[in-house]
Order: sequence, then structure tokens, then C-alpha cells
Amino acid sequence: MQTADWDIVIRGGTLLTMNTEAEIVEDPVIGIKDGLIAAVGTGRQEQGNAKETIDASGCLIMPGLVNTHTHLPMVCFRGLADDLSLQDWLNNHIFPAEARFVNKKMVYEGALLAMAEMILSGTTTFCDGYFFESKIGEAAREAGMRAVIAQGFIDFPTPDNVDASRHLTMAAQFLTKWQNLSPLITPAFFCHAPYSCSPETMTAVKEAARRAGISFLIHLLENNDEAETVQKLYGKKPVELLDDLGILDEQTIAVHCNWVDKEDMAVFAARGVKVSHNPESSMKLAAGVAPIPAMLELGITCGLGTDGAASNNDLNMFREMDIAAKLHKVTTLNPTVMNAKTVLALATIGGSKVLGLSRIGTIESGKDADIILVDMNKPHLTPLYNCYSQLVYAAAGADVKTSIIGGKIVMRDRQLLTIDVEKAMANVRLLAAEIRKEKR
Amino acid sequence: MQTADWDIVIRGGTLLTMNTEAEIVEDPVIGIKDGLIAAVGTGRQEQGNAKETIDASGCLIMPGLVNTHTHLPMVCFRGLADDLSLQDWLNNHIFPAEARFVNKKMVYEGALLAMAEMILSGTTTFCDGYFFESKIGEAAREAGMRAVIAQGFIDFPTPDNVDASRHLTMAAQFLTKWQNLSPLITPAFFCHAPYSCSPETMTAVKEAARRAGISFLIHLLENNDEAETVQKLYGKKPVELLDDLGILDEQTIAVHCNWVDKEDMAVFAARGVKVSHNPESSMKLAAGVAPIPAMLELGITCGLGTDGAASNNDLNMFREMDIAAKLHKVTTLNPTVMNAKTVLALATIGGSKVLGLSRIGTIESGKDADIILVDMNKPHLTPLYNCYSQLVYAAAGADVKTSIIGGKIVMRDRQLLTIDVEKAMANVRLLAAEIRKEKR
Repeated sequence: MQTADWDIVIRGGTLLTMNTEAEIVEDPVIGIKDGLIAAVGTGRQEQGNAKETIDASGCLIMPGLVNTHTHLPMVCFRGLADDLSLQDWLNNHIFPAEARFVNKKMVYEGALLAMAEMILSGTTTFCDGYFFESKIGEAAREAGMRAVIAQGFIDFPTPDNVDASRHLTMAAQFLTKWQNLSPLITPAFFCHAPYSCSPETMTAVKEAARRAGISFLIHLLENNDEAETVQKLYGKKPVELLDDLGILDEQTIAVHCNWVDKEDMAVFAARGVKVSHNPESSMKLAAGVAPIPAMLELGITCGLGTDGAASNNDLNMFREMDIAAKLHKVTTLNPTVMNAKTVLALATIGGSKVLGLSRIGTIESGKDADIILVDMNKPHLTPLYNCYSQLVYAAAGADVKTSIIGGKIVMRDRQLLTIDVEKAMANVRLLAAEIRKEKR
Repeated sequence: MQTADWDIVIRGGTLLTMNTEAEIVEDPVIGIKDGLIAAVGTGRQEQGNAKETIDASGCLIMPGLVNTHTHLPMVCFRGLADDLSLQDWLNNHIFPAEARFVNKKMVYEGALLAMAEMILSGTTTFCDGYFFESKIGEAAREAGMRAVIAQGFIDFPTPDNVDASRHLTMAAQFLTKWQNLSPLITPAFFCHAPYSCSPETMTAVKEAARRAGISFLIHLLENNDEAETVQKLYGKKPVELLDDLGILDEQTIAVHCNWVDKEDMAVFAARGVKVSHNPESSMKLAAGVAPIPAMLELGITCGLGTDGAASNNDLNMFREMDIAAKLHKVTTLNPTVMNAKTVLALATIGGSKVLGLSRIGTIESGKDADIILVDMNKPHLTPLYNCYSQLVYAAAGADVKTSIIGGKIVMRDRQLLTIDVEKAMANVRLLAAEIRKEKR
């Protein structure tokens, strides 16, 4: 292929492929065409120019980060209520605010602001679950982000569904709208939790997901009282319940999993269940620490997520990586677990596997072109002995310079090209003023 | 006082004073003259212009962050060796690198790069302990940073002292040089640890510190085997040993304290010992978690520190605050401990109390003018309900826009005014190339 045929060529810097051989290429040339990585070579092998050239001198080039779990519109509640017990936080602050302020406009505007934050900190793909999920999909198309949008189900009235009997109708409508609309958007279904969805709801939704060949997500064992609650309701442990219902398979994503025991992990490994790990949120809510090193040893596929901004309070995957590595070292008193390379893999190829998006997560010829450039010419990133260590333990979201999603440049030299960031902030500030007024 | 007499006036934004009343002033006017905060008022009370005006619209104005413990030149080893056990890391990587590469030039150049990183992430004061500590003082004067520079003592040969019998001579020389040289620089003494300094060394150094009226620092109970080591050597617990030696008083700073028990904490409270908490380093090295919430309840004065960049791997106090808050919540399973305001206090007024620098840590008339402006006009800082939450859980080092130390602007709109940052990076890269060569 002639380089003149490429839409974009990236030259220079250092490429972290994150492929199975963990290849690192100095002074690479990466050609992008029709949304795909057309070629990965070195300066000597590939010559000529494409329509657009990106100079990556002084940068690390790597796959875009994959955020496997978030509730984007909750940026509107960022910092509204903190340092509270989970029940106080949810029942006295978040649920009332949601009941009062969640609508299609809030979801769309909140999601767009969240996407600005995510692109600015290196995320190219996210998996979201919230109300009015179609608005998230619309915002993602606007922002040019890759997304798994998960329609939520819960057995009590929500801002977007007052009647649980409408679950399957909603599921069908959501699928019809999104299943083939955009190559960047993948629909999924999300049952809130084993204590808030009946076995009937969970099996029906999982069955619908299975028929459509899409992912099924569920919050699982976030807190240490969930096992007791489910035991009282059904006489079983949560993982046992889901397994008996036939819900656990390779397209099931269990979110949090802070309190899984050895038996639960064995079930996950046997069924191929995927795990979304959200350390910052679970730390801030004092929910617990998921035994990720143990799960990785069992071969369970894990990815990282930020959770919503009301419990984090940002959507910054660089911070999530740093904290994930350090949290597990100190809680196991073993500094060798969750090394930097492992953690970076969780945030890239691991996340893509969790979400079933096999075309992203590494930089290899033929894959979708989701690529970020991290500017390493900064005091806190100097000197550079080890790319993985530097990215996980020292780099920050603000070091991401340029971002490409599906072959389209969405940020160049820190300038967002798809989102009017001042407008996105202004919209959410207006909403926040209403929320603040009500709170007084 | 007429505003025309001021050197600098800061107008607009929101002021977090961090004073005892935790006053927050909207649209403030802050006058600075001769290195001091000359006045704190509001737009209506204070009119006119000073020689220099800083527009703080959209910013939070707050005291500069105080890093109570670091080893600055270790930025030269950032990422050289990670994810290793403490003994492997120290004995096979850090100590050999230090023995081979630490000299006055490395200390000076490393410290200057570290100061660039610190100013860029909001730190205005640090407390350092390393070899050739006078070079750190010289770099701090160059950078215009406020510093406690602690001459180190250890009972084996070091790059700057091959003979432990020279301890007191070195101490005297260091004091003579620094005690009255610069209002920004305060000397101190640092005994490495109870297992690496003899009781004779510790008492002699503490006695010299006491005579000079300066702080005495010591690494204490960083790892869980230290108590056993000291018990074997002296038949006492480490804190008991130090207390019996008469070393513990209000000018003693105990660093780390991950394994203090209730008895130790009671001794700290009784003696007025100060504590430097370095959560990220202790997490990364899997050293342990200091019981900071319990110490705060006992009224023990605590501050935050980053430790050196070889075990963190940055010097970013914003990241340290976020992680400190979250770590203690999850390890105590109590989301209400270490709330955002408490943590921000640790990083400002708490740190100033730990270091005995009573003239910094808050923004009040008459105090030294150590002030930072944090630009809140960013997606990840929108909306803004609660300043403390936003600063601790969402703000990043790169959000710091402007920094003033001792009434002098050291960074304006992210541009460092006292350090040639490209040169500082280039110098350390040259050194790193040597280290890399040797390692192969």
C-alpha cells in the first residue's frame, strides 16, 4: 500500500502496541485508512505522506483507554454529596436528585460534558449504563466516541420507565434503534443488581441479550451486605443465584465484584464471566476491594472502569490505573502484584475483551484506529526508563495530546474537535444552578 | 493601606482561606507586599491597582500545598525499578544506583527538575532529606521555593559522608551555612531510621537539633518487620526506644508510621510528635497503611508527603490527596473518614504545622504569601458544588495555573518563571542515559 493512500499517518515517538508480544516500536510509522490501522512499520520501511500527518516526536503512541463502567450523566452530580455512607449518599442525595432532575436533556448534556472529560484524559471507548440510554448513544455519535450503551433495567419506577412490565418492549425498541446504526456504537443490556431485579427480570433480559448476541451487565457484590440480602431473598449466594438462573456466560459482565469469594471466582472462570473493576469508586464509597490479582491468576478477563463521577469524582482512566496498581499492592502487602504492564493491559486490551470489542485494544494492522498520543516531554515524565511504569505511575490525563477514534481525530494538541467544550460546561452549570437552588 | 502600595493584587475567583473558621470568600481581593499577605478583602472593600494584577476569575485561590516528605533527586531514578519487593528494590536497584551516581551535580540537577514538577502541580513548600542536602537548598533558592532541607545521618558510608564519626561536624557546618541564609530555607536534621542509626547517633543528632531549635525527622515503622528488627537489636519497640532516648518531642517528625499501634499513638499524642503521611509510596512498596484517622482523632498533627519519585512515581500532591482520602475510607470500610476538607487541611495548614512553619498554610493577612490559583474552568471540574470535594477528588496538578511563593510569582499561566524547564529535563535525561547504559 502506498502511504499516499492513507487518510492519516503518525510518525515518530515510541509505539506501545499492547499486542501479545508487547512489542514496542521506536520511531514508528502508522498508517490509517477508512477508520482502520492500515499499516504499522518503522521510519525506514514506510515513506511518503498521507492526507494528514501527525508528528508524534516525544510522545508515546498507544491504544486509547477503555472505560468498562460508568454512568456518564452523573457528572451533573459531581461533588454534590461526598464522604457519606453509601445508603445516606444514595437515599438522601443521589436518588432524590435523580428522581427530580434526570430527563433526556440532562442525560444528553451531562454525557457530552463527560465525553469531553474522557477524551481529554485519553479514553476512546466507554461502557455506560444510565436512564434514557439512547441519549448517551446520540451524544457519543456527536462526540465521535466508541461506546457500549447499556439500557438499564430495575424493578421499580425510574425516570425513563415507570412500569417494570415494559422491560422487554423497551429492550426490543432499544435494540431496533441501535443494533446496526453506527459502527462506533454497540448496544447492551444492564440489570441493576441481584437485589433490585427479580429473577424473572434478570432471566428475561439475559435471554433477550443472548438472542441479540450482545453483552449483559450487572452490578454484583459491590457491598459486603449484598450477599446477606440476596441470601434472605432467595436462600442463595448472589453468584450461585445468577448461575442457577443460567445468566453467567462469556457475554456477562459483572461490575465491582468486591466481595466475591473463591467459590464465586471459580464459577466466573468456568463460565467465562468478565469483570469490570472500579477501584476509585469502591474506595471512595468504602465498598470494598475486588480481588483482581486472584481473578487474573484464574484467567478471568478483567477491565478497569471509573464508575460515575458522583462516586469517583472524575472519569480519568490514568488516575484509575495508578490507584488500581497501588491499592492491590498494599492490600495484599505484595508489591509485585498488578505491575504496570498488567494494569495498562487492563485499561486497553483487557477492557476491549470485557466489552467484546475484539477490533480495539491494541495497535496492529487491520484493527480499528483508536489511538492516543501521550506527550512525555514534561518534568513529571522525565527521565523515561520504562514506558509502562511512566504511564501508570506518573502520567496524568492532561498529558494526552491527541486522540483518534475509528480513524477520526477527535482531539488534536489538547483541542477537542467534536465537542464545543465551553458550551458543554455552560449547559451543565445551568442545570447545576437548578440543583443547587433545590438543595437549599 | 492603599492598594497602590501593593506589589501584587489578586482579584476575582473564590478564596479558600483554610483558616480556623474555614472561610470561603467569593470575589476576593488579596494584596501582597514584601512577601507577605498585606490584606484579604472583597471587591467592594478594596479598590485600586497594585504594581501587578492577577485576574483569578474562574479560579480557586488557596494556600500552596506543603509536601512534608520527599527525596527530590530521586526523580533521576523515576521508573528505574518498579513492582519489586522493598528489599529487592533497595538493595539491587536503588542503593547501587545511588552509590554509583549520586554526586553534587546529580543532586542539584535532579532537585531542580523535581521543583519544576512540584511548582507545576501546586506545591510551594517541601521538606527534603537526601545526600549533599546543601545542593537542594541552593536549587530551592534558584527556584524560589520554600523548603525545609534536612541533612541526613545514617551509620554507614554514604555518597556524601564515608565516616559516621563526622556526623556532628557535618551537622554544625550545615547549620552554619543555612540557619540564617534565606527566609525561604529552614534547615533540619534527618536520622534515617531506628535500625540504621545507633542510639548514640540519634541522641546526638536530636540534641544538636534541639539546641538549634530545628526539626528532627526520622523514618519510622514504614514496614511491618521494623518492630521485630528493633526489638532484636534493643529489646524495645521502636517508639519506646526513641521515647526512652528522649528523642520524641514537638519538633520531631515521624515519617510513614504505617505500623504504629495504639500505645505508640498515645506516646505521639503525649509528646506532640508530628507525622508525615506518604500513602502513595507506602501503597506502591506495599509497606502498609498508616492509621491517620485514628491519629487525627487523638489530636496528632499530620501532614501529607509524596516521598521520592522512585517509589511514587510523581511529586504530585493533588494525586496524594485523592489517594489519601480514598485509601483510608476503604481500609476502614468507613466512607465518612478523611473527608475532603480534612485532607485538604493535611496538605496545607497540617503540613505547615508538621514542619513548624507557622507563617504559611492559610491565606490570612500577615502570613507569608504562598498562594496558588487552580483553574476550575475544565470539564472534569464542572459543575462546582463543593470546593473541597472538587480539589481533592477531581482536580489534578495540571489544573494549577499560577503560583506565588513568598510574594514572588514562580509560575504564571502554567509558565515557570524561575526554572528553565527544558534545560532541567535535558540535564536529567543526560544523566539517565548514563544510568541506562550501566544497567545493561
